[in-house]
Amino acid sequence: MGLKRTKISVIGSGFTGATTALMLAQKELGDVVLVDIPDMKNPTKGKALDMAEAAPVQGFDARVIGTDDYKDTKDSDLVIITAGIARKPGMSRDDLVNTNAKIMKSVTQEVVHFSPNTTIIVLTNPVDAMTYTVFKESGFPKERVIGQSGVLDTARFCTFVAEELNVSVKDVKGFVLGGHGDDMVPLIRYSNAGGVPLEKLIAKERLAEIVARTRTGGGEIVNLLGNGSAYYAPAASLTVMAEAIIKDQRRIIPAIAYLEGEYGYQDIYLGVPTILGGNGIEEIIELDLTEEESAALDKSANSVKNVLKVLS
Amino acid sequence: MGLKRTKISVIGSGFTGATTALMLAQKELGDVVLVDIPDMKNPTKGKALDMAEAAPVQGFDARVIGTDDYKDTKDSDLVIITAGIARKPGMSRDDLVNTNAKIMKSVTQEVVHFSPNTTIIVLTNPVDAMTYTVFKESGFPKERVIGQSGVLDTARFCTFVAEELNVSVKDVKGFVLGGHGDDMVPLIRYSNAGGVPLEKLIAKERLAEIVARTRTGGGEIVNLLGNGSAYYAPAASLTVMAEAIIKDQRRIIPAIAYLEGEYGYQDIYLGVPTILGGNGIEEIIELDLTEEESAALDKSANSVKNVLKVLS
Amino acid sequence: MGLKRTKISVIGSGFTGATTALMLAQKELGDVVLVDIPDMKNPTKGKALDMAEAAPVQGFDARVIGTDDYKDTKDSDLVIITAGIARKPGMSRDDLVNTNAKIMKSVTQEVVHFSPNTTIIVLTNPVDAMTYTVFKESGFPKERVIGQSGVLDTARFCTFVAEELNVSVKDVKGFVLGGHGDDMVPLIRYSNAGGVPLEKLIAKERLAEIVARTRTGGGEIVNLLGNGSAYYAPAASLTVMAEAIIKDQRRIIPAIAYLEGEYGYQDIYLGVPTILGGNGIEEIIELDLTEEESAALDKSANSVKNVLKVLS
Amino acid sequence: MGLKRTKISVIGSGFTGATTALMLAQKELGDVVLVDIPDMKNPTKGKALDMAEAAPVQGFDARVIGTDDYKDTKDSDLVIITAGIARKPGMSRDDLVNTNAKIMKSVTQEVVHFSPNTTIIVLTNPVDAMTYTVFKESGFPKERVIGQSGVLDTARFCTFVAEELNVSVKDVKGFVLGGHGDDMVPLIRYSNAGGVPLEKLIAKERLAEIVARTRTGGGEIVNLLGNGSAYYAPAASLTVMAEAIIKDQRRIIPAIAYLEGEYGYQDIYLGVPTILGGNGIEEIIELDLTEEESAALDKSANSVKNVLKVLS
Repeated sequence: MGLKRTKISVIGSGFTGATTALMLAQKELGDVVLVDIPDMKNPTKGKALDMAEAAPVQGFDARVIGTDDYKDTKDSDLVIITAGIARKPGMSRDDLVNTNAKIMKSVTQEVVHFSPNTTIIVLTNPVDAMTYTVFKESGFPKERVIGQSGVLDTARFCTFVAEELNVSVKDVKGFVLGGHGDDMVPLIRYSNAGGVPLEKLIAKERLAEIVARTRTGGGEIVNLLGNGSAYYAPAASLTVMAEAIIKDQRRIIPAIAYLEGEYGYQDIYLGVPTILGGNGIEEIIELDLTEEESAALDKSANSVKNVLKVLS
Repeated sequence: MGLKRTKISVIGSGFTGATTALMLAQKELGDVVLVDIPDMKNPTKGKALDMAEAAPVQGFDARVIGTDDYKDTKDSDLVIITAGIARKPGMSRDDLVNTNAKIMKSVTQEVVHFSPNTTIIVLTNPVDAMTYTVFKESGFPKERVIGQSGVLDTARFCTFVAEELNVSVKDVKGFVLGGHGDDMVPLIRYSNAGGVPLEKLIAKERLAEIVARTRTGGGEIVNLLGNGSAYYAPAASLTVMAEAIIKDQRRIIPAIAYLEGEYGYQDIYLGVPTILGGNGIEEIIELDLTEEESAALDKSANSVKNVLKVLS
Repeated sequence: MGLKRTKISVIGSGFTGATTALMLAQKELGDVVLVDIPDMKNPTKGKALDMAEAAPVQGFDARVIGTDDYKDTKDSDLVIITAGIARKPGMSRDDLVNTNAKIMKSVTQEVVHFSPNTTIIVLTNPVDAMTYTVFKESGFPKERVIGQSGVLDTARFCTFVAEELNVSVKDVKGFVLGGHGDDMVPLIRYSNAGGVPLEKLIAKERLAEIVARTRTGGGEIVNLLGNGSAYYAPAASLTVMAEAIIKDQRRIIPAIAYLEGEYGYQDIYLGVPTILGGNGIEEIIELDLTEEESAALDKSANSVKNVLKVLS
Repeated sequence: MGLKRTKISVIGSGFTGATTALMLAQKELGDVVLVDIPDMKNPTKGKALDMAEAAPVQGFDARVIGTDDYKDTKDSDLVIITAGIARKPGMSRDDLVNTNAKIMKSVTQEVVHFSPNTTIIVLTNPVDAMTYTVFKESGFPKERVIGQSGVLDTARFCTFVAEELNVSVKDVKGFVLGGHGDDMVPLIRYSNAGGVPLEKLIAKERLAEIVARTRTGGGEIVNLLGNGSAYYAPAASLTVMAEAIIKDQRRIIPAIAYLEGEYGYQDIYLGVPTILGGNGIEEIIELDLTEEESAALDKSANSVKNVLKVLS
């Protein structure tokens, strides 16, 4: 009885994890438990405390704590996994995959142990494969393990289009399928500004340039920063997915979902349009694709499968 | 004619500067120009771009750009200075003061050149002295050069009190005078929870502990982080001051103001309760102090004067 | 399993009920069921539909429906009662009390039947007595039946003070005890602007005028409107109480609570400072009162008792 | 020098005007002056005061005043006209047009006299003709006189589609051209849910029913209310247009704009997609129409011309 505060755990207290915690708290989506490994215990506590001290000024009512103890995540309503390493110079892709898969497995065991009924969103790269790993390790029903990539890819695309047209970013709507970054499959014909298809507003070649920039949008930030990768837009993307689930909104949001026949694929996590609500992925929306789009999605799916092979 | 977007420049693209830019953009207080030195040009651009890419997801309409060229700050409605170095191991306080004063002077010249009618908020430490330096260098009227410290000190105090009482942070109101951190003068009798004076809700000794923790609140975060200092709560503090000025709200906010006789001081910047509005510091509220409070404020003022002596 | 949308029922679709529904929806506190008697079925549906049509433009995700069937309120997380008649010219106070008590009883039976675990907030006047009536009829534990008056009285006081001082309304904090309107007991010594006690900022006589205006604040609106009474500020007051409960915020909010010894009273609903959270009234804060304040509170309690006598 | 609060005047203090004032204040878009005729002086003051008293509770900082004196609107940044009568039983359409045109002329003279540099948004029906009347009377450049209809028609359409699909209203985007209500020209092919064209999600016949319901959406509310017409969604529509102008957002918003050759029309106000920003209508977006759409737009334009004939 009584109404209880929602509880969200964010695993990984790097820039993305911490920024996600901030944005969840700002929106009062729930109390946030920011978790990292024992080595990071103090910095994690430090970030959480600093954030909590922003609350009276920003006017949000959400508790944020930092910890290295998964006990503190007990009975989370939602768990977001941002933990994992980034590829370092000289590291092979396979090494990255194997290292992060190991991290996913260990994190998942802890998460599931303390919150057996929660829903999990995964951000760790390579995200399609890591979401698959978490799904298998968790034993959760498929709708409660979800990966993020399409919200971010779309956000980058919309930012570039709004700048190109000199209009408010509020009115641009993009649409992507498939994998993250290089592997994304943009559906330009479903993208619009204020409802007007982009093809009517931007020349074909220019649109192709914007798509190309979007594909490498993550790398663009990495190159500029010099050290590290994007975190503001990834955190915002995780937050909007969290909101859809926590408020049971049934929003139409591109997400990495487990496919069992949809779009012709089996036993794979791939980016597709979904309806996100209180039960996680409540539906997968299937679209008719052109031959070109199908081919691109196939290529995307093959990329994911190749990564998965590394893990088997 | 026509209504124009507000323009805010944030000087210094470290964690505090960048987080401030994010919070200003989230609140749609205006377009943000994030400025740093040429060495930081690319990371600054990277942070700004990443933030801009969060806009379509968070639903805010604010342009954020990163630059090393002050030309881009032209005609800013408000400028926030977060630039400067932190004290490193082995560095004397005087070295810190002199280095940051040099930075303040050079930043101020650029700011004033491109935005002669703007208002400036200073965060750089030691903040009372640095605000004084910016004031002198700018030639601006005193109401348009303002320092931040009291909002942050109060925020920390409120966070600790809300936790102690297990009540919403929305209902706790603290009150401080004087310098930042160690030098702050808390007015407990003006602090309350839901209107009820704290002295009625928390035992005296416990309150003293909370005050002590607040005094060293910045150091607590530094120690936890291990590397670097707080930025979420400082950025939130700058943002609420910016909002009061940009929206001309006439809010009662503690700020570092230039005193010409108020509280018995002359030619010094010190933390006092002010009314912040479209003209910057529109009023300084003078309170009757107890002897104890007066003595503490004197001590605080002497600290500031000692720092200023280093500069002369 | 799965996260569910919150459900709030608002009984009475007059101006206050409808405006409350709007504000609850705007804050996305839950889906709203607006209920009125069969005669009002269509207008209630009309208001709800109009409100729902504002959602895509205002960007809020909350369903609002209008109905005359209590079945639609099933399993509400919170119920707000605004139903009842206003005193008409020539109507005695006793007639008003008896009519509204009858309405309260019938509404309560329906509410309890369909939502036996809900929390109820009552606005209907005379609110202290009507809350008592709902409490007795519901058989609910005392913490789950709450009346509104202090938030509204305080809001009016703060508005007048902010105007007097020409400062932001965000920084004024008032404090009242006791009954609604004429019977309210303002605790001026606990009221402040930016933390500064009002007595230091406003002359005693002027403060007395502001208190007097607050006491008759409801009547001032009635006289201006000519036909009907205030609804914007009452609706806002109900909404902030609803938010505290739904988000389990433990806010310090004045509310009409059932007293069992607190402040020396037994078996009466009276306005006192409370902590509002997920369990409804989680605590009553007891303050030391001056003799003058005690006398005023006694007078207030006697007023309430006199109304209750009409009902027995 | 100094930053000033924005000022918005709302002419007409009926339900729509008052609700618009509330929504403008809630979003802190500026201080609001609510104006009505001398007969309505007191109720207008009453509504404004009640709204102002909601501010401390809702946490918005915006002054709202009610008046019958246009002097109080001096130097408004934006003016919204909701004044006018509704058609009463037995009143001919021509009588309605002539009466409201007379009101528009007199309101416009006052508005222009006190705010010669403002921008005006018109809601009064028949809105295309009334916007034309205000334009002619004002002598303002065309970009600064704008009518509302498309935002509201679209909002209704989106509400019905979201309900039909059981998805969040945040993800549905509709698109209309032409006149208000019956005369609207929906561009279904430009309407989507989460980017997916509605034609792929909803059967043709069902979509036609939804379009038909949208056309008569205003009448549906009128019939339900029994007395009066919609005000929540109209007020929200005005508010989003006001926000686009005040914050200079360059949003893509359907608006009633003065056409000089666009879409093949001359000297007429008609609903078209526009870019709304600090200068009012900054651009009109011209789309290629199908024959069917062109014919419907022609019909819509003829309706408007027929109304204008009544006025000449």
